[in-house]
Amino acid sequence: MWQTDLVVETRGRGSYEITKQIASAVAESNVESGLCHVFITHTSASLMLCENADPDVRRDLETFMADLAPDGDPRFVHTMEGPDDMPAHVRSVLTQSDLCLPVRDRRLALGTWQGVYVWEHRHDSHRRRLVVTIQGA
Amino acid sequence: MWQTDLVVETRGRGSYEITKQIASAVAESNVESGLCHVFITHTSASLMLCENADPDVRRDLETFMADLAPDGDPRFVHTMEGPDDMPAHVRSVLTQSDLCLPVRDRRLALGTWQGVYVWEHRHDSHRRRLVVTIQGA
Amino acid sequence: MWQTDLVVETRGRGSYEITKQIASAVAESNVESGLCHVFITHTSASLMLCENADPDVRRDLETFMADLAPDGDPRFVHTMEGPDDMPAHVRSVLTQSDLCLPVRDRRLALGTWQGVYVWEHRHDSHRRRLVVTIQGA
Repeated sequence: MWQTDLVVETRGRGSYEITKQIASAVAESNVESGLCHVFITHTSASLMLCENADPDVRRDLETFMADLAPDGDPRFVHTMEGPDDMPAHVRSVLTQSDLCLPVRDRRLALGTWQGVYVWEHRHDSHRRRLVVTIQGA
Repeated sequence: MWQTDLVVETRGRGSYEITKQIASAVAESNVESGLCHVFITHTSASLMLCENADPDVRRDLETFMADLAPDGDPRFVHTMEGPDDMPAHVRSVLTQSDLCLPVRDRRLALGTWQGVYVWEHRHDSHRRRLVVTIQGA
Repeated sequence: MWQTDLVVETRGRGSYEITKQIASAVAESNVESGLCHVFITHTSASLMLCENADPDVRRDLETFMADLAPDGDPRFVHTMEGPDDMPAHVRSVLTQSDLCLPVRDRRLALGTWQGVYVWEHRHDSHRRRLVVTIQGA
């Protein structure tokens, strides 16, 4: 059992790859085979496993989400922190706050095209804190 | 390794905070550092990590979901248990049936504004059964 | 700690039940009580816990997703592999790449109506590789 914190500084809405940081944590843990759990301690940013080859995939995901939960949507009552406040919560709820990834041979056993991303849903920059827990033998 | 059941009695569609019950299970497990896994054994209610300060967030999430998968939607064939039957399955599939939460210093290591909720998607009251598994050292 | 691979041959878009294969892995692991983690190593197919009694539920879920992220949607830029390329990524991001299921008495502790499915989001047949990790005592 091995646990550490990870801080990701976002520069507004968009996705930020953290595969290398997670892989480093796995290497440091000395776990040969088991699971790596990643948790984001916020409700207006989330985690995503996504195709890591063509950046257009993540751009299209932004388009999709922006249409599904538009900023300033008059249906939303909770607008304390601005027009992107409630859409950020919706986008978080529709994606993941925690990911659990297999570890094999002291490495993340991801597919060839899978990358791990923090998805910032607010337009402002934020300091996002993650807890990484690695369990195994 | 520690495992227990939790029963949540819902009073129809809406979200019900269970952070305290989960935190109690963690305390009882005596696990100092590890993971707490929460599983809901149903497909018409789900789990959610959500902002726990302003109840309008959860009200807006209801509005969003009610528009996305409307009760009585004529596209749906599976209506055995009524107009909210299929929308409940859609809402479950779009959210979480299991959550895995970090445990640190014998406590849930949640963010300041994160609460754990059972999200009932049916209009009737239901008895929802959860399995809580805590692993660590 | 027990880990194995599972290959699921899909015959195009649709959901394929894998509850029996996962249950067999649990039986083989000899874990009495703990967690079974299922991970799909792709970003255009995903995992789903779904009602396993009436096939119309899964048909309605297809209808819902086809309307939400339509094939050939002109909003999408990433169309390298055809009109179902980007919708497959959207559907994956909105559902699950990993599931964690409780194990009790050497069995999956699922609800009566819960089945585990691979959800193929592409129209062509694919060979989908899963990693199953079982932890416990």
